[in-house]
Amino acid sequence: MSDFGRPLIPNADRLQRSIDQLAEVGAQQDGSVCRRGFTKADCDGRQLLAQWMTEAGLSIRIDSAGNLIGRLDGEHSNLPALVTGSHIDTVPTGGHFDGALGVLAGLEVVRTLQAKGRRLRHPLEVIAFADEESTMVGCKGMAGTASSDAAEYTTSNGDPIAVNLERIGGHWPSLASACRDDDAIAVFLELHVEQGSVLESRGDSIGVVEGVVGQRRFTIRIAGQANHAGTTPMALRQDALVTAAEVVLAIEALAIRHPGDPVATVGRLQVWPNAANVVPGSVEMTVDLRDLSPLVLQELVDGLMLDLERIGERRSCSIQLDPQFEVAPTPADALVMDAVSAAAAALDLSQSRLPSRASHDAQELGRRWPMGMIFVPSRGGLSHSAAEFTSAEQCSEGTAVLLEALQRLDRLL
Amino acid sequence: MSDFGRPLIPNADRLQRSIDQLAEVGAQQDGSVCRRGFTKADCDGRQLLAQWMTEAGLSIRIDSAGNLIGRLDGEHSNLPALVTGSHIDTVPTGGHFDGALGVLAGLEVVRTLQAKGRRLRHPLEVIAFADEESTMVGCKGMAGTASSDAAEYTTSNGDPIAVNLERIGGHWPSLASACRDDDAIAVFLELHVEQGSVLESRGDSIGVVEGVVGQRRFTIRIAGQANHAGTTPMALRQDALVTAAEVVLAIEALAIRHPGDPVATVGRLQVWPNAANVVPGSVEMTVDLRDLSPLVLQELVDGLMLDLERIGERRSCSIQLDPQFEVAPTPADALVMDAVSAAAAALDLSQSRLPSRASHDAQELGRRWPMGMIFVPSRGGLSHSAAEFTSAEQCSEGTAVLLEALQRLDRLL
Repeated sequence: MSDFGRPLIPNADRLQRSIDQLAEVGAQQDGSVCRRGFTKADCDGRQLLAQWMTEAGLSIRIDSAGNLIGRLDGEHSNLPALVTGSHIDTVPTGGHFDGALGVLAGLEVVRTLQAKGRRLRHPLEVIAFADEESTMVGCKGMAGTASSDAAEYTTSNGDPIAVNLERIGGHWPSLASACRDDDAIAVFLELHVEQGSVLESRGDSIGVVEGVVGQRRFTIRIAGQANHAGTTPMALRQDALVTAAEVVLAIEALAIRHPGDPVATVGRLQVWPNAANVVPGSVEMTVDLRDLSPLVLQELVDGLMLDLERIGERRSCSIQLDPQFEVAPTPADALVMDAVSAAAAALDLSQSRLPSRASHDAQELGRRWPMGMIFVPSRGGLSHSAAEFTSAEQCSEGTAVLLEALQRLDRLL
Repeated sequence: MSDFGRPLIPNADRLQRSIDQLAEVGAQQDGSVCRRGFTKADCDGRQLLAQWMTEAGLSIRIDSAGNLIGRLDGEHSNLPALVTGSHIDTVPTGGHFDGALGVLAGLEVVRTLQAKGRRLRHPLEVIAFADEESTMVGCKGMAGTASSDAAEYTTSNGDPIAVNLERIGGHWPSLASACRDDDAIAVFLELHVEQGSVLESRGDSIGVVEGVVGQRRFTIRIAGQANHAGTTPMALRQDALVTAAEVVLAIEALAIRHPGDPVATVGRLQVWPNAANVVPGSVEMTVDLRDLSPLVLQELVDGLMLDLERIGERRSCSIQLDPQFEVAPTPADALVMDAVSAAAAALDLSQSRLPSRASHDAQELGRRWPMGMIFVPSRGGLSHSAAEFTSAEQCSEGTAVLLEALQRLDRLL
């Protein structure tokens, strides 16, 4: 039970209506939603959201990084803000829930608080971060982790980031002003669909996120010797593809054998000359490693380097490992996790802890301020497609946990 | 020692001059030769060869399949012909020796016999077969194994086979007339560069070819489930690429484990969607199996089917095996192999037996008449490139064996 008495319950129908209405903006024939960052659909969605925020009693502003920020005053306006939100931009074939749920749940929290006449001690902010699916300029701008080099932003429409930011009310030349002070934010708590099938397979309603995993991406280049597929005996081959096959399996084994549960993926693999009658001469592939612990990531990289040396030597192929990029893990804050756990318990919802293995706005906010995330189940683990689905009841349960956890944090902090 | 006394020795310098002169026709900047079938360079090369044949005392004709046939009468003109030859067309980046050596060695045999005033009992034919590197219309036309469906001929210049044949003096409408009678040919013996490195690695001068391997080509299609590379735990994946990696290694193991020495190659492999952050959903690859024995080929296919079933089941991926084409092996004739062995021994040349793992005109001729092939070493096993090299001495040694073996067969048959 909450210290405020029985937990407040959000209006599931009102939430679902908002989800449905927002999904109409950028709706595609196949049921998916295309609302890529900075497009007309994205602008239309933001306008609708700004209208709803205003109607709910939030004062709104857009910062230089293009984030749409709705703010509700608290009893003590000088306290740092409790912040929630997510994003409403989508991938080209997005679903109805990825990002949108977190923003609209924040709105529903405000609507519920207002309807019940409840006022928090802290100011409460609901934010729609800019372009999460591509540049993450919004959350990075706010956290002060955004690059100031415009050339580093590869936007989906190909326009310069400055032009794109202007379209949504941001302002590239003053990007730095989007970065918030340390004492402006007390905590950031984001509700999101899991986009995986862990909760579904465990039969849990609520995921208490332990953090957003870090990522290390490499390119592996294997050089053997292209040769005639008929005249080259097996023993005399330097086949880059059989070497690559051993590397692919070694990478899988590294992740499976690890006592934690890191993931490792070879997603892209290219063969040269790629002709049926030629022994492959070279192969290029990517390897993507993700885990919550930077130590585990380093153990995987160390193991990979040993494997590549062993395989390359035995196969008489040269193997090169080139770093592509690295994203540090963002652990969730212990106090925030506990508040989410307590909220789920108060609401009699089954819960378990798990890392987020996808990127989220929380990953950048969490580099500066105490961060937490709440997951609700994704049917079949599917996401980024028309098949993405979380029921109205599940969305409402997640929103109830968000509301209850924010109230608990409001009292504790 | 030959029954004719000391073996006749061909003129190595004359042979090398012919090889060098023919290599000028279609010579490329990088040292390679481009004399693809039916091109102007091919026609120019054939004209030069026809002139040399005539000068050597051969009567020449071109059959409907475009084969340039030079014939030297024997003592008994009603006996079937001893036939030698190969092709002078090349791949786009051909070398100086592939095909050309076999034709020019046949010419050198005639020149040597004529110079020494030696006459064979049988007629002797030297043939440059049409378009070996692509359609094999020449050798297939002569053996009666050519398709009469023009649509089945994919020529390198894209022109219809009828148009192409006309360019080199052939005649598509009467293709069937190129097919020789059973009793027109006594034996076909072809000298060719090995295009592999077996002789070089064994330190042998002469390869006595046991036959041309058969080939079975398949497409393997693996269907798993594309998924998020972050949010999909290792245990819940149906990764088509790790499945493909197991298949690639299983195919290699099938060939290596076999007590014979078949070869198996996955030369082409394609991944979908082939993105670094997506668990691969499907993979398509080719598998190419070659061996001298149809039984061994079938054993490999049977083993492959068992492996695919086992791997697919364990990996929860569907795996489909679709036949692409099949070429039956052509064993060499025992008597012809013995004649080649005896000839090499008489010439004090080290020799060993090996299969031909590449296609040759002999493969089609051998379907109708007793066939043999003589290999000489290819430096580094390289072929189909400017780096293709067999020394003047090695070319001459192979030609000497060809001459001696033909003389022995002439006496025996």
